[in-house]
Amino acid sequence: MTTYDIALIGFGGVNRTLAQLIHDRGSSFVDELGFGLRVVAITDLRLGSLVKEDGIDLSVALRLGSGSETFADHGGSATPDNEHVIRNCSADIVCEATFTNPDDGEPAVSHVRWALESGKSVCTTNKGPVALRGPELTALAVRNGVHFEFEGAVMSGTPVIRLARKMFEGLKLDGFEGILNGTSNYVLGRMETGMELGKAITEAQELGYAEANPAADIEGFDVQLKVLILANELLGAGITLADVTRRGISELSAKEVKNAALAGRRWKLVGSAKRNPDGTVTAGVEPVALPLDHGLAGVSGATNAVSFATDLLGPVTVSGPGAGRLETAYALLSDIIAIHAAKAGVAAHA
Amino acid sequence: MTTYDIALIGFGGVNRTLAQLIHDRGSSFVDELGFGLRVVAITDLRLGSLVKEDGIDLSVALRLGSGSETFADHGGSATPDNEHVIRNCSADIVCEATFTNPDDGEPAVSHVRWALESGKSVCTTNKGPVALRGPELTALAVRNGVHFEFEGAVMSGTPVIRLARKMFEGLKLDGFEGILNGTSNYVLGRMETGMELGKAITEAQELGYAEANPAADIEGFDVQLKVLILANELLGAGITLADVTRRGISELSAKEVKNAALAGRRWKLVGSAKRNPDGTVTAGVEPVALPLDHGLAGVSGATNAVSFATDLLGPVTVSGPGAGRLETAYALLSDIIAIHAAKAGVAAHA
Repeated sequence: MTTYDIALIGFGGVNRTLAQLIHDRGSSFVDELGFGLRVVAITDLRLGSLVKEDGIDLSVALRLGSGSETFADHGGSATPDNEHVIRNCSADIVCEATFTNPDDGEPAVSHVRWALESGKSVCTTNKGPVALRGPELTALAVRNGVHFEFEGAVMSGTPVIRLARKMFEGLKLDGFEGILNGTSNYVLGRMETGMELGKAITEAQELGYAEANPAADIEGFDVQLKVLILANELLGAGITLADVTRRGISELSAKEVKNAALAGRRWKLVGSAKRNPDGTVTAGVEPVALPLDHGLAGVSGATNAVSFATDLLGPVTVSGPGAGRLETAYALLSDIIAIHAAKAGVAAHA
Repeated sequence: MTTYDIALIGFGGVNRTLAQLIHDRGSSFVDELGFGLRVVAITDLRLGSLVKEDGIDLSVALRLGSGSETFADHGGSATPDNEHVIRNCSADIVCEATFTNPDDGEPAVSHVRWALESGKSVCTTNKGPVALRGPELTALAVRNGVHFEFEGAVMSGTPVIRLARKMFEGLKLDGFEGILNGTSNYVLGRMETGMELGKAITEAQELGYAEANPAADIEGFDVQLKVLILANELLGAGITLADVTRRGISELSAKEVKNAALAGRRWKLVGSAKRNPDGTVTAGVEPVALPLDHGLAGVSGATNAVSFATDLLGPVTVSGPGAGRLETAYALLSDIIAIHAAKAGVAAHA
């Protein structure tokens, strides 16, 4: 039986939930998925780092959190030592789930690079490295004979990138339109009832949807990164962040949104890209008043969706959760499943 | 390079469109998909049959149609000779697209059986054989070392069966709800504007959506077969048609549908199945007044959709075309792509 040794970089909500899944369901993975998972390294900004070649006791690691204990109290170090751990641990696969700095993608870009350079495959749910350094990191993975997977960077566990690649073979993909930010979509839904933007944001914050600084959601920065990922990965656009135009929803008034709803149109923050006749790709983020029969008009609340424009089928739309700890942890698991399938294919060909 | 020899059983809209795709795009398939396609046999109730081991000239075959010429005028026979052609032609893959008799699935069931028995893989867009004889025919395919694929039997080219199998690995599927009939969905949409059922059906017939006898669409028989397919294939339900309860939309009045819409609910004909705590599966078709924030409420016109209930992601929904010649012909192509992938995997393992 194949067992993959895993390193968890960042032990916040996502990787902690993945560890919980491995702890609770790991033995059924063997039967259902054909491989086992063993966590051999964990690093965390607050808890430090723990490395055990023969496997970390996850029940102990999962107990650490809000208290004062760190990994130093359990045979590890009080500091994360990310570069040392990533480069030198015995992991086959590194699950990177720290945070995204939208300017340069650090520190996640370095985490991914160290792992790929040392011959380890990487799964990440971080938009930053994929949006800002995706092609470069994929090339690095190919050179080192390992894999770089990032399904969770766009719509958490809802399959989007892999769906377009695996389910649309033989089709030409001409573009996409998506609702790629649950917070702004929730806020727009509340504004349809007449609630002002500021109050709707406060409500979203109270529900845990919106960050303390809501600009990334409301001004479209989050969607801009996701559009960049989809345009480059699925349309081969070869564009950078500056090529993705961006306008958020902060200029919309509750009255405008409500009146549109009464007139049969729903304002949505739409991220889109389309291939032009000359082969270039135009991409952007902007609020659009969609007619009710548009495939994205019915996407409510925190749900995300992408509608793909295909030549033979016309629009095909997938919708599902776009965030959440469990949903995003599943994205990492789906990446590991994809790496296993690719390795099994290579082994069979050898 | 791999070339698959194809037999087209039934040369109506779907297989004719597949032939046109092969004629127009066949050379690009080699680059894009890694295989070539050559049509070596065609049978048709009206045109007869044509068999050419070194490949049929599709430009000639595609010219035949409404005129009086048959395949007998081009070196073939004026009769379809289905059993003889299917059993004895040199095809690797048989594309079955005749018609569905919803009582016993014939003659499609026999077409599929003859092909599988003679060592040929089968793609079909016919609900009948899959719904009424699916597990038996799949077992026959396995015994003969060939493939039985039928993505187009549920939502034409929109991936549903393959999507659930390939994209949800590691998830538990607890059930599904779907809008699986475009005609009834179109009719309900018109009834929301106050149009009576009969008039909406006439309009759908004029637009080419509804059959001369609309009962299969309006009374839920079509959806019943599709629910049976999804329940058995995706939930392993092991049920028969009689286990799928059925109620159509003919008892709904335009007033009721319109008033619901004004009150924020949309009547939809929903086909669904769910796994019960004891492991059994309950399945049925019935009209439901969905709240506007339900994932299926916004599915308008002739669009189809299925919402899958998963343990880790909650509902994930795919929507797209549920009918159409080009869309259904693509379903056959996607089946051939899947057969190629499976054969490549087997070859690599050998």
